[in-house]
Amino acid sequence: METIVGSPITRVDALEKVRGAAVYGADVKLPEILHGAVLRSPHAHARIVSIDASAAKAMPGVRAVVTGEDLPGVLTGEAIRDMPFIAQGKVRFAGEPVAAVAAEDEATARKAIRLIKVAYEELTPVVDAVKAREADAPVIHDEMMSYVRIGVVKPVPNTNVVTVNEYRKGDIEKGFRESDYVLENKFRTQMVQHGAIEPHCATAQVDTNGKLTVWTPNDSPHRLRKDLSDSLGMLYPRIRVISTYVGGGFGGKGGVKAEAIAIALAMKTKPRPVKVVYNRVEVFTASLVKHATVVKIKTGVKRDGTLMARDVEILWDTGAYAEKGPVVCMQATAAAAGPYRVPHAHMIGYCVYTNRMIAGAYRGYGTPQLTWAYESQMDMIAQKLGLDPLEFRLKNVLKEGDINPVGNVVHSVGVEACLKQAAQAIGWEERKHVPRMTPEGRYRGFGIACSTKNTKTPSGSGAVIYFNQDGRITIAIASVEVGQGVRTILAQVVAEVLGVPVDTMSFSDPDTDFTPFDASTTSSRTTFHMGNALKMAAENVKKQFVELGAAVFECGSAEIEVRDGRVWPTDRPDEAMTYVEVLRHQFAAGVCLIGQGLYYPPSTRGKAFHGSPSVFWMYGAHAAEVEVDPETGRVAVMRLAAAIDVGRAINPTNCLQQIEGGVVHGIGTTLFEDMVMDEEGHLINPNLHDYKMPTAMDVPEVLPSLVEAYHNEGPYGAKGMGEVVTNSVMAAIGSAVEDAVGVRLTELPLTAEKVYAALRLKGMSDKG
Amino acid sequence: METIVGSPITRVDALEKVRGAAVYGADVKLPEILHGAVLRSPHAHARIVSIDASAAKAMPGVRAVVTGEDLPGVLTGEAIRDMPFIAQGKVRFAGEPVAAVAAEDEATARKAIRLIKVAYEELTPVVDAVKAREADAPVIHDEMMSYVRIGVVKPVPNTNVVTVNEYRKGDIEKGFRESDYVLENKFRTQMVQHGAIEPHCATAQVDTNGKLTVWTPNDSPHRLRKDLSDSLGMLYPRIRVISTYVGGGFGGKGGVKAEAIAIALAMKTKPRPVKVVYNRVEVFTASLVKHATVVKIKTGVKRDGTLMARDVEILWDTGAYAEKGPVVCMQATAAAAGPYRVPHAHMIGYCVYTNRMIAGAYRGYGTPQLTWAYESQMDMIAQKLGLDPLEFRLKNVLKEGDINPVGNVVHSVGVEACLKQAAQAIGWEERKHVPRMTPEGRYRGFGIACSTKNTKTPSGSGAVIYFNQDGRITIAIASVEVGQGVRTILAQVVAEVLGVPVDTMSFSDPDTDFTPFDASTTSSRTTFHMGNALKMAAENVKKQFVELGAAVFECGSAEIEVRDGRVWPTDRPDEAMTYVEVLRHQFAAGVCLIGQGLYYPPSTRGKAFHGSPSVFWMYGAHAAEVEVDPETGRVAVMRLAAAIDVGRAINPTNCLQQIEGGVVHGIGTTLFEDMVMDEEGHLINPNLHDYKMPTAMDVPEVLPSLVEAYHNEGPYGAKGMGEVVTNSVMAAIGSAVEDAVGVRLTELPLTAEKVYAALRLKGMSDKG
Repeated sequence: METIVGSPITRVDALEKVRGAAVYGADVKLPEILHGAVLRSPHAHARIVSIDASAAKAMPGVRAVVTGEDLPGVLTGEAIRDMPFIAQGKVRFAGEPVAAVAAEDEATARKAIRLIKVAYEELTPVVDAVKAREADAPVIHDEMMSYVRIGVVKPVPNTNVVTVNEYRKGDIEKGFRESDYVLENKFRTQMVQHGAIEPHCATAQVDTNGKLTVWTPNDSPHRLRKDLSDSLGMLYPRIRVISTYVGGGFGGKGGVKAEAIAIALAMKTKPRPVKVVYNRVEVFTASLVKHATVVKIKTGVKRDGTLMARDVEILWDTGAYAEKGPVVCMQATAAAAGPYRVPHAHMIGYCVYTNRMIAGAYRGYGTPQLTWAYESQMDMIAQKLGLDPLEFRLKNVLKEGDINPVGNVVHSVGVEACLKQAAQAIGWEERKHVPRMTPEGRYRGFGIACSTKNTKTPSGSGAVIYFNQDGRITIAIASVEVGQGVRTILAQVVAEVLGVPVDTMSFSDPDTDFTPFDASTTSSRTTFHMGNALKMAAENVKKQFVELGAAVFECGSAEIEVRDGRVWPTDRPDEAMTYVEVLRHQFAAGVCLIGQGLYYPPSTRGKAFHGSPSVFWMYGAHAAEVEVDPETGRVAVMRLAAAIDVGRAINPTNCLQQIEGGVVHGIGTTLFEDMVMDEEGHLINPNLHDYKMPTAMDVPEVLPSLVEAYHNEGPYGAKGMGEVVTNSVMAAIGSAVEDAVGVRLTELPLTAEKVYAALRLKGMSDKG
Repeated sequence: METIVGSPITRVDALEKVRGAAVYGADVKLPEILHGAVLRSPHAHARIVSIDASAAKAMPGVRAVVTGEDLPGVLTGEAIRDMPFIAQGKVRFAGEPVAAVAAEDEATARKAIRLIKVAYEELTPVVDAVKAREADAPVIHDEMMSYVRIGVVKPVPNTNVVTVNEYRKGDIEKGFRESDYVLENKFRTQMVQHGAIEPHCATAQVDTNGKLTVWTPNDSPHRLRKDLSDSLGMLYPRIRVISTYVGGGFGGKGGVKAEAIAIALAMKTKPRPVKVVYNRVEVFTASLVKHATVVKIKTGVKRDGTLMARDVEILWDTGAYAEKGPVVCMQATAAAAGPYRVPHAHMIGYCVYTNRMIAGAYRGYGTPQLTWAYESQMDMIAQKLGLDPLEFRLKNVLKEGDINPVGNVVHSVGVEACLKQAAQAIGWEERKHVPRMTPEGRYRGFGIACSTKNTKTPSGSGAVIYFNQDGRITIAIASVEVGQGVRTILAQVVAEVLGVPVDTMSFSDPDTDFTPFDASTTSSRTTFHMGNALKMAAENVKKQFVELGAAVFECGSAEIEVRDGRVWPTDRPDEAMTYVEVLRHQFAAGVCLIGQGLYYPPSTRGKAFHGSPSVFWMYGAHAAEVEVDPETGRVAVMRLAAAIDVGRAINPTNCLQQIEGGVVHGIGTTLFEDMVMDEEGHLINPNLHDYKMPTAMDVPEVLPSLVEAYHNEGPYGAKGMGEVVTNSVMAAIGSAVEDAVGVRLTELPLTAEKVYAALRLKGMSDKG
């Protein structure tokens, strides 16, 4: 039985962060550093006629000015290389970089960009994704078919459709034919900003050897190196990426963002480094957003509540450049029918360009939007059938060994237990006896929802451990600490294997020159993938101690026991030596043992880049109790229960904290957050005053709990959880609102204004 | 047959260095860096009565002042921890740090130290090592017996003798009894500075987490980490050492030197880093020197020239602090009887403190001094016996499988071939027909000598290789490029194993946080030890490619061939894939393979830190042709042949370059270099004007050649060579001088003054 895995130890990076000693992206200091600023397009769609940077160049303190002309042909994009570092001839969203300046200080750089004169020829902006998909819409990327792209991206020529992904299971028409009822609904979700406290930033330097080094709070240093290698035509050894601590990522800190500007400038200022730190407006307009979606969902069901068929069509508004959009479309569309046994399913996703902000990875990678749709509809169906929403779900949820709607045979399926635990925590049964009106005159309601999410598959993680002669362990990995507690979890895995305390370990910073390949710190993949790699590396070290023990005690290695950091021959336990003693005995002159681990899901070796069944599926459920104020329409979430299937909780406290964070994140999307654009494609609330994120005042009593549906391939049974913690918050609250006031809103967010308007329509508001 | 190993490829770091892009110690730049300067003792031996630093502290721009009181109990020393970072209560050599200042710039720091007032109580300086060993000499380290020391250091209480090392083989008295002749001579060698172009320097930072990072041109980052851990009581993870390129080391760049000052200051200025760069006077007086020695050697020989017995007593003047002195004494004393079959041997070394500069590692680690003695005596014996010096040596040199004077059974013994090759190159036979007087009236002479050196044993090296998905290889090792070409040699080893070009490889900088343990870049050990570790790491990767090949081609791994960077099934060579194709096939989503290697001589595992037979012995021979000007006494080396047994030349050009450098180094010691001290222990020539190093004008025609006595445990047969290239230069020249003018000088250097004086005594000078 494990003793360290499963233990709620304190975060290993807690002290450093509390002290303010942790280095985040903007904290990077280098000698002779310059500061960059970006001139951004005021237009969502325009041709650049001319750029006059002479006044900026002449300004004292300015060291370099770059425009798209300095980087001909340099394009980036994880799925399809469509985005210039700096606009080339055309701008496609309001906020797109048009020029950048490096100066001795940031104020000078920001002043200088205002001296750059750009003449534009405005084009019609395409700001509505539905219209963007239409045949006669203006085409945003004329060159789309010429862009380099990965195989699974299927652009539709002469349109704004950058990819279409379709999945089928069974015979969808037969399914509908065999159904007693068929419901069809449309749901919409809004564009949301990740809301990380740390803004996007990057520092780049091209040294006198011509080697490029980038310091950045990027969630995936090795992927960034690859992307830069592809874009710049530079070999891997010429590029070094060092990831700092990340002050909140949620998907927004991947890809090439502030990095592009810093690099473009550093190439002109070499060897002086250039730091670029976005301000909040830039984060809003020019980093990344969550895809706005339109989800049409048609579900066939038997009278007894058995799901028969589900057809889902999703329109993903991916904005001006594809970024990870096509991969979001591909991966999330596969999860669009939910965690249910549905014999007949069809899912199709359309990823379309618009002249809006770039959409990409956002916690949940598209599945929160889908959960909003299918879980809202589940309640509508339950209502129609007169079934309890919980019972209806329990009747249909996936169980161990089932085939899910995308055709994967699923294991480690905790969704049933999640639903039951969330229901138990919120008092699902007891709710029937709770008054529906509070003493203050607010309507009370309850809702429940569940969700599932896949993880990107396949993907690889490598790990190296140095077991030093003083018994201290150095862990060299490229996993990035984005606040999720990954160092703590991974230290626990190593500690468990080797039977040593967590405080014997320290981590090398992620650095492509030193830490082995890791695909990314995304997709809730790290505990599973890097956990496995580190477990292998630690077992590799342990095996070496067995062999060393055999040498020390002059016996066969089969007779050596290694436990609790000690080594002994089975028959002579009183001769046990510590690891350090074994090392000193065998290597008196000093040594470190090296352990290596490489995890790449065995079943996916030799398979294509995309298309393998997800190596694990996450499951979770949320249950909400809300109060709706009929005078204002304000929805207050009073309690929110969340039960998440983590496979195995390596650190229960860390898991519970993840849930709390995810719940708050979900509440923001549900009730307040909305990036509002005008008709010309300008964001009108690009700041934290006008864009409402939840504050401490909005946080309900959170009732988190864990389900452990051991995953047989996960380290100690663990799998990911960081995204599914937020997925069904929206639908649970939406259903609770409906339960409270009988109003079913299908478009997020559920702002007081919208609820109030709906209540007026229903005549439920006093002012109605 | 190897194709890359053995090939004279261009140095992998050539371009970077020629461009001036390589970063050496003093090139380290950090934001907000401060600059340090050191106040040094003017006295060789004194008690510190008081220090008044108030004026320095008050000076504008000064940020910190430290004295010994700031570091109570902090002592360092690889063999015996006797040296404070900054003098505590007492100074023991002129130049010892008494205080240090950190200021905004170096000029301010150097001005500020002049404002510090120190009151001393002078003590009698002990500047003569012979007198220092006497019973009534003033004791320099009263606390000697309380210092922490490694087991093999045997201090003699109440004396200045810090260690005594003794080796015996056979019965030395019997040996002398059975000899026909017994000769006894005394030789002396002088104190010499390493003469690296780059001065000692270090930059240290204590960050807000309290973690100490040191950037330094130190030859052994892991050893430095250990030393700092021992001295400061800080755990390994709290210390990070990054070694830059080293601008010449020769043994002088190990240990704790400028590092101590930078660290002491950085602890007071945290988080601001402090850089300390020694000026040339400081390098001379306060870094490290080569041990001055007095070597008494008594040899018994049969009439036919068979060596019977050799008794050697060495007095090592280790200066004010032991540094590596006791280890030099231990290791070099073991090699004191030379590369000869001597049935009866006794060697004893005394390592004594004096109030002189600290002596420690210097290319050859004590063996050049011993070679001077035993090879000069070999000629004296040959003369007495009427034998040709070459024949006499060839009669006695060690051969494969012999037991050397310290009792090691030796393998890979190329000394006979070295002697023959050097003789051939210089024209040893033909010399008999060459006129002994040149047309210009100078006397011509020829000399030959050979030598051997052990390497520190045991010691360990670890290596990690990342084989990236683009086919590029990252090598993570802590070996330091000190100018010896180690990166080139090691890249060739990896290239040979994997069958890929050297230019696919890049090196991570040595960094204790990222690169695995390596004992040191010293003792000519790197090609052998790190070469073996990297060979294992590369073979580890190759094995993975075999397994991957078996998966790709669906066959047994025994049927997979891997050669020239390609992988194929034996029976289907036309289906061969490159490594990159194999990786893409098996790991479509990306990966890097990790190879690990750990080399620690197998025969020494489980053995004590010191005392194992040397894992390899180096051999070499030099032959010189000189002209001696009787009017000035000036010795001009006209030609110098050198033949060195390298085991196997991984890169012949690099080996030949090593020889050229070593020859010039040896000429400096032979003819010019001498650190001259006055009676009070002050160095009177602490600069490159007054201390004469060889210039291009002094370099003879060098005739280098290689002997390859394959070492069965070395990588591709290779062993070390970097030290033995200089060892017998001195004796070869000394013997040539004797051959020219019949004067046998026993004290180095052979300055024109000394030779002239001897010629006058002999009446050979015109002015005589």
